Amino acid sequence: MDQTLIDTTLEQIRLALVGGKLDDAIRALTGLHPADRADAFSDLPDDTQARLLPRLDVGSAADLLEEMEDEEASDLAEALPVGALADVLDEMEPDEAANILGDLKPEQAQDVLAQMDEADEVRPLLAHPDETAGGQMTTSFIALRRFTTSQQAIDFLRQLDPDQETPYYLYVIDRYQKLIGIVGLRELVLSQPETTMETIMDRNVISVPAGTDQEEAARTMTRYDLASLPVVDAEGRLIGVITYDDIVDVIEEEATEDIYRLSGTSSASDLGVWSPIGLNVRRRLPWLVFNLFTAFLAASVISIFEGTIARLAALAVFQSIVAGEGGNAGTQALALMVRGIALGEVELKDVWRAIGRELLIGILHGLTIGLLVGIGAYLWRGNFWLGAVLGMAMIGNLLAAGMAGTLVPLSLKALKLDPALASAVIVTTVTDTVGFGLFLGLATAFLPLLA
Amino acid sequence: MDQTLIDTTLEQIRLALVGGKLDDAIRALTGLHPADRADAFSDLPDDTQARLLPRLDVGSAADLLEEMEDEEASDLAEALPVGALADVLDEMEPDEAANILGDLKPEQAQDVLAQMDEADEVRPLLAHPDETAGGQMTTSFIALRRFTTSQQAIDFLRQLDPDQETPYYLYVIDRYQKLIGIVGLRELVLSQPETTMETIMDRNVISVPAGTDQEEAARTMTRYDLASLPVVDAEGRLIGVITYDDIVDVIEEEATEDIYRLSGTSSASDLGVWSPIGLNVRRRLPWLVFNLFTAFLAASVISIFEGTIARLAALAVFQSIVAGEGGNAGTQALALMVRGIALGEVELKDVWRAIGRELLIGILHGLTIGLLVGIGAYLWRGNFWLGAVLGMAMIGNLLAAGMAGTLVPLSLKALKLDPALASAVIVTTVTDTVGFGLFLGLATAFLPLLA
Repeated sequence: MDQTLIDTTLEQIRLALVGGKLDDAIRALTGLHPADRADAFSDLPDDTQARLLPRLDVGSAADLLEEMEDEEASDLAEALPVGALADVLDEMEPDEAANILGDLKPEQAQDVLAQMDEADEVRPLLAHPDETAGGQMTTSFIALRRFTTSQQAIDFLRQLDPDQETPYYLYVIDRYQKLIGIVGLRELVLSQPETTMETIMDRNVISVPAGTDQEEAARTMTRYDLASLPVVDAEGRLIGVITYDDIVDVIEEEATEDIYRLSGTSSASDLGVWSPIGLNVRRRLPWLVFNLFTAFLAASVISIFEGTIARLAALAVFQSIVAGEGGNAGTQALALMVRGIALGEVELKDVWRAIGRELLIGILHGLTIGLLVGIGAYLWRGNFWLGAVLGMAMIGNLLAAGMAGTLVPLSLKALKLDPALASAVIVTTVTDTVGFGLFLGLATAFLPLLA
Repeated sequence: MDQTLIDTTLEQIRLALVGGKLDDAIRALTGLHPADRADAFSDLPDDTQARLLPRLDVGSAADLLEEMEDEEASDLAEALPVGALADVLDEMEPDEAANILGDLKPEQAQDVLAQMDEADEVRPLLAHPDETAGGQMTTSFIALRRFTTSQQAIDFLRQLDPDQETPYYLYVIDRYQKLIGIVGLRELVLSQPETTMETIMDRNVISVPAGTDQEEAARTMTRYDLASLPVVDAEGRLIGVITYDDIVDVIEEEATEDIYRLSGTSSASDLGVWSPIGLNVRRRLPWLVFNLFTAFLAASVISIFEGTIARLAALAVFQSIVAGEGGNAGTQALALMVRGIALGEVELKDVWRAIGRELLIGILHGLTIGLLVGIGAYLWRGNFWLGAVLGMAMIGNLLAAGMAGTLVPLSLKALKLDPALASAVIVTTVTDTVGFGLFLGLATAFLPLLA
């Protein structure tokens, strides 16, 4: 991506618009690669976008909407007249068109569909939830019968719209439209004209049902290094195909979602650095409020020991160290577990083995950090027992951290929730509570030796 | 992926091995899809792996090593005799073979290379660092001259080893091996036999220099929806190609790395739930020790106010709430910024705009959370001024959180370091320090009203 080129073009467009030369602005924009064009277009003010879009030819407008972020594209589409939008959607890949239609108001979507030529290709896609294989698939694939010859297949390819995405595979179906084989373009190129699909097809074709979670579909494609993945209905009939470029988006989206959820930022991946302030507040504030409740919970543990702290204020200095280290150790176990589950390396049945390992690691970390913190406190305050109490509380809290970091995500998975959901907030609540309770409890017991 | 099938096969293998029937074990293993086979094989004990591997035919052994995790594959390869390993590596994709050779001891790698037939394809790959485009590329691509006809190209494809990965594109080079165009298999299929590559090639070919960071190469492929990306040397000569399946691995690896670094778990993505305990401790303990230093730093701020806490122990209860909320708000800004940088949506020049937005969001969040926490403290303790001090400290800390969450990752980027590196630990140190300082400082000033 060439940011300088985009910036120069944006400057040209601004100058052209100031001079009222819309055509020059259009020319500058269409000089860019479609992906860069979408970037440049997104950087323009909303009213400029609305002025330029209707001046683009239908093909360029379709390219633009395909390359833009879903939400932005839908906002822009919504503002177009019904007829113009129908023409643009007709030019788009069916899955991209369905994404936009799915974001419109139902009545507007119906009106647009009624005017579309390709409505039949798009309509079946609207029935599938966004985050499933069905929601990610396109209906623009090539299905042939087993007795089709290579020459017939090539003639068929010749008729296709050259603007369409290149299909890497042809699919072979039986009379009931059941998927029975797959033929790569290379096999087609190398075969004799009269060869039938049946002879050259690979019968070992991997497919997924339409209801499969998009993350699982992505994992299947990654695992078997597939450039495209056929999607079938309950009867095994071929109804769509997911291509690798959609799957890359899914993988990035799922990684973003995990990062946001783990860090208590947002439960959806649609937030970004430049999202509207309102969306930021709507997504982020609930996490802060939830965190506030858990913080009061942990604080109530401290309040039990107010009498002890009143007698030795130094305890207030060290309580946060025990809690903070526990929080770090807990999020470590959590990050590994959430990533392991996302990459398919951990199943529910592994829970005991995982806990055993984290306990062992917790003991090793606890002994080291417990010793370090104990020595640190002793050197700072000159009281051996303060160091000893701090060290013991630390060992206990790091063990609790390993448990919580392992059990919280696995429990969420067992409840069929996303393991990343709210995990860090819950895990640090455990480590805060245990950390404060253990340290202040031990300190209360040993108070005569500490003061 | 079919876990049941893998488990059944593992059981068959175990039974066969107990009965000493090595051939039955091999048959059960090779009945699986190569990707599943690698999974099943990885689950076998090390000594069983060492017994089975030499009994596999060269092609199956090559498939197995290609599908396994890099580290595991290297460990296994290391144990093979030089001659056998050379034969297996000859069968593998050059980039995968290079990965394994790169992990061997230099002398062993030299010995193996000396016995390999395909050493010339692999050797150039060894010169490129792992995390660059050069380190990810394969030398197995098809380059043709511009006057080559379609028929000649098809004849050329026919000679290729059918086991090789299907190339989706043919590359066109000039006499100096400079990349000048690209031809899709589809254009080849549809062209007349006597058409030259020059006529059907697309001259707008996107390529990257070999030294490009793998993450940037991945971003280029995602951005332009490329199934493969040509890699060129300093003179623009075509030296390799990256395929989409490698890029999916890169994207997952980079996401894992970001999650680990953000959560203070590990600075490398090679850690997993089932990694050896020793590796866990080596990767995780340094973060805990670093976190311990920053925790002492924040604790030293509390110790300034020990006198105040001695007069009002309740302050020790509320100090952690201010710090904890700040930590959550800081990691929110951080997560958005780190993800935005990773996805190429934020540049250094955007720093002021980003800070302005986070300040605004911080004010909105601060007013809400400040009010909530103030009311909560007032209701709990019945002291209006305690609530007021807590609320004011919260507003200040959420503003500091937005600043730190924005500036820390951008500063790391400016220093050419990974923005995710150590960020959460640094950001929470800022919010702990500011949170403790602001709250206890204000409490000291208002102490007569609080006690």
